This record gives sequence, C-alpha cells and structure tokens, in this order.
Amino acid sequence: MTEPLFNRLALIGIGHIGASIAGALKLHPGTVGQLVIADANPAHLQRAEELGLGDIYCADAAMAVSGADGVILCTPVGSFAGLAAAIAPHLQPGCILSDVGSTKQSAIRDVLPFVPAGVAFVPAHPMAGTEFSGPDAGLANLFEGRWCLLTPIEGMDEAAAQKIEALWRVLGARTARMGAAHHDRVLAIVSHLPHLLAFTICGTADDLADETREEVLQFAATGFRDFTRIAASDPVMWRDIFTNNKDALLEMFSRFSEDAQAMARAVRWGDTDYIEDKINRGRKIRKSLIDIKQA
Amino acid sequence: MTEPLFNRLALIGIGHIGASIAGALKLHPGTVGQLVIADANPAHLQRAEELGLGDIYCADAAMAVSGADGVILCTPVGSFAGLAAAIAPHLQPGCILSDVGSTKQSAIRDVLPFVPAGVAFVPAHPMAGTEFSGPDAGLANLFEGRWCLLTPIEGMDEAAAQKIEALWRVLGARTARMGAAHHDRVLAIVSHLPHLLAFTICGTADDLADETREEVLQFAATGFRDFTRIAASDPVMWRDIFTNNKDALLEMFSRFSEDAQAMARAVRWGDTDYIEDKINRGRKIRKSLIDIKQA
Repeated sequence: MTEPLFNRLALIGIGHIGASIAGALKLHPGTVGQLVIADANPAHLQRAEELGLGDIYCADAAMAVSGADGVILCTPVGSFAGLAAAIAPHLQPGCILSDVGSTKQSAIRDVLPFVPAGVAFVPAHPMAGTEFSGPDAGLANLFEGRWCLLTPIEGMDEAAAQKIEALWRVLGARTARMGAAHHDRVLAIVSHLPHLLAFTICGTADDLADETREEVLQFAATGFRDFTRIAASDPVMWRDIFTNNKDALLEMFSRFSEDAQAMARAVRWGDTDYIEDKINRGRKIRKSLIDIKQA
Repeated sequence: MTEPLFNRLALIGIGHIGASIAGALKLHPGTVGQLVIADANPAHLQRAEELGLGDIYCADAAMAVSGADGVILCTPVGSFAGLAAAIAPHLQPGCILSDVGSTKQSAIRDVLPFVPAGVAFVPAHPMAGTEFSGPDAGLANLFEGRWCLLTPIEGMDEAAAQKIEALWRVLGARTARMGAAHHDRVLAIVSHLPHLLAFTICGTADDLADETREEVLQFAATGFRDFTRIAASDPVMWRDIFTNNKDALLEMFSRFSEDAQAMARAVRWGDTDYIEDKINRGRKIRKSLIDIKQA
C-alpha cells in the first residue's frame, strides 16, 4: 500500500468545491489519511456529516487545522484574510496551505502575510464549478479533465507545489502554472465578466414592466436560459470575486463595453458586414474551443 | 384514417428549423399529404434529399408553393420580402402562408404586402433552436414542450390560425398568441440581446493579446463556454434578426448598458450590498424559470 499524500487534510469550507473535493477523495481511498471538514455554518457542517463527506467535523477552522499536514481554503475569497489570521497560529511546521480561490492576487495578498515560517503556501484554482452551492452540491467528478491552475509565489516550496499538483491529478484535474496577475486577467474575461453580464441581464429583465416580465419568464428562449443558469451562482462567492479582481474585471468590462457599443451602433445603422464579421469571430472562438476539447 | 392537416405543405428553406419540422412530421405520418422542400442552396437541398426529409425537392421556391395548401417560410428573416414577392403569384387560393421568423413586425412588414387575396397569412415563431445550422441539424424533438407564438395580423383568418396552431401542437409545441410589437420586445430581452452580448464577448476575447487569447481558449471556464455556445449560431440568421428588430433590441441594450455600468461602478467602489442584491435578483429569476419548467 502506498503512502497517503496527506496524513491529515483539512478542508475549510464545505460548499460546492469543498464537497466536490471530499466526494472525489472518496473515489480514491488512501489519498489522504484523515479528512477534516470545517465550516462556520452549522447547517452545512451537519449536512456534511450526514452525507459522510469526511472523518472529523469542526465548527472551528483553527481547531480543524491543528495537526494537519495539508489545509485547503474552500470559502469565498473575501473570507481569506480573516481565516488566515485565525488559523495561522495553529498551522504546524511542514504543513502545506493551499486554496481554491478564483482571484489569485487577492488570495496571495490576504493569506501570505499570515503564513508562519515552516508552512508552505501554494495558491491554486481548480477551474470547475456549477451554479449550485452548499454541501449537497458536491460532485465527485467535478474536476475530471478540468484545469487546476497554480499561481506560484516567490520562493515557493517546489516539493509542496508538486504535492498539491499530485492531489489535483488524483481528483481528475490537469494542472498548469502561471503568474497570479496573468491568471486574474484570463479569468476576468473567461469567467468573471460573463458572470457580471449574466447577473446584469437578469436584473434588466426583472426591471421590465410587469406584463413583459411575466412573458420573459414564460417564453425564455435558449439564450436567456443559459444566462440565468450562470446567474444562479452563489451571491457571496461572486460578490467577493468581483471586488477582489476589480482591476482586471473593470479593464475587461471596459473593452467589452466599447465592443458592445460598436455592435449596437452597427445594428442602428444597419452595418451588416460588421455584424456578420463579429458573429463569425464568435463561431471561430467556439470552433477553437471544440478543437481543444474544452466545450 | 383522419384527414391530413395539409395535403401539400411546402417548407421554404431546409436549415435547422425547416429540417426539424420535417423530422418531427416523420414522427407523425399522415399530418401532411406531401411535404415539398425548397432551398436556394443546392448543397442543402441535395443533403435534404439524401436524408429523405421530404417527398418533393425544388430549388425554386415559386415552383415549390404551386399547388400547396400550406407554405412555411423557414429562411432568415432578411430574405422574407424577396421571397414573398417571388412566391406570391404562385400561391393558390385557400393556401395558408406562415413563417418561423424571430422578428414578427418585420415579417409582417415584409410579407403581408405581397399576400394575394384568398391566401391567409399566419405569422408564427417557434421558440426553439440550438446553435447548429443546416439540414443535418434537424432535430425531430426540437419543439417538444417549447412555445410557438402566433402574432395575429388584423383580420386574420381564424380557421387558418387554428390550423397552424394544430400543426405546431402535432410537432410537440405549446401555442400562444400575442401582438407582434410585444413579441419583438419580449424576444429582444430573452433572446436577441443575450446573443448580441455573447457574440460581442467572443470578439473582445479574440482581440486580447496573443498570449492571453491562447490561454482564454485553453482555460475557458464554464461561464465563457456557455457564451461561446450561444455565439456559435448562424451569422446570417442573427444579422437579419438584429437589423430587423433594431428598435426593441437597441432599447433593451440601452437598459442593459445602464445596468451594467451601474454594476461596474459598484465593483469599482466596493458597493458589496448593491452587487449582492443584483446577484440575488438573478437567482430569483432563475428560480422562477425552474418553477415554470422552462429551464
């Protein structure tokens, strides 16, 4: 029998991603010795226990990390600073601290100052997720074939990084590394801006006169249903992502706004060549996605 | 054996929607006596024949409608005026002329002037479709449980309207009626604007510096993949929809732009209450859609 990757791994936060990690670990017994689950929400913690997601359940994150050789923060990124401050004194030397946050510059800004000597911090971001949330939304195959991006910090412990990569590969993910700033720009355009637009258009529809709004709901066509699917995501998680990736998100929003205004202008003036050209570029991107099997 | 609804039904255009009608009719033999298929694109017409979608195949729409008691225009809405002019002299008295166009004010504007006395025009819009196009994209169950909206014209032949409704119910759809102007506003927000935004964001991503663009493709997360799915739709069809529903689309775009700017402002200034409230409204709309089983 091979050694477990972690003797005692603590998941801080048992929402959609935490529960999916726990579910995937169940498919690969022996990957961790003991799985400790912490959540400040008593209902979520109780539900995680009912679902048998872990071995030990703690309301208190500081207690959960005691004796752990691996800790993964799986809470909204806005909680990272407070959480890091709370657990830091209880992290044991040799422990690897990682996270699953969608905004890496803010994760590093908020966590790194608290990381004690002898503890390796390995920022990571599994690019997977659905619009569902909470421990019941855990999907054991959520990470299958998806990317987990590591955004190394200066002087990062290479052995610790490789251990986190090994964990993600066990969970089914492919791993890659990039700088945190670059990560945040890429995510702003592929994920954060699409969510901002989806949340917005649902609000725009909701503001329409009553008669129209009811018909919007009744006759929602394919395009809008896709938007509302995106827009059904967790409010706190996305609020935190938007405010913690502000600069990149606002830059991408600004670029997008210019392009959308240009498209609206083409519609107003009947510039059919422009419209067709833009639609064809969309198809080209779609085709590229299919070619590299991300769609 | 019951009478067929139409002795001879002509589908003008055998793309995604036309081929789906033909496919659905195959599941309900006897609904039409003969199915005539016309398409100006020789490759599409040949493919339709290879797939055995109809009984008679015509390159010429005018020839296809001769002797037909039912005609459905299934081409992009921008072609309606020219098509109506071409087929009008060949429509026989008692024939019912309908269409599947997504913009009903323009359909009525472009077709009605050509409709000869004795022919009933029944504008209709089946609210279904995927991002695929062409005769091979026909899906026999495409209309199952989806809405087909009729937008009655003044003095519309009620018996003709009921016959078109009966046809759509055979194809699996639910039917409803509303004014053309109201239809165009509802569709602008649930379908046309979402498509405009999706096409645009793909272009915005495509304009990013080479290094980022490649990673956009490689690491496309869920949100962006949904957008590119929408954006993969047929360029000519969507170009025609945008320009033929200009007023409603630009009004909805303007409302959306104001809302998106307000959201961007909230991100810039860290107005977390505003952001959370908007996201919660998105979830509420999503929940409404699930409650009425449109998602």
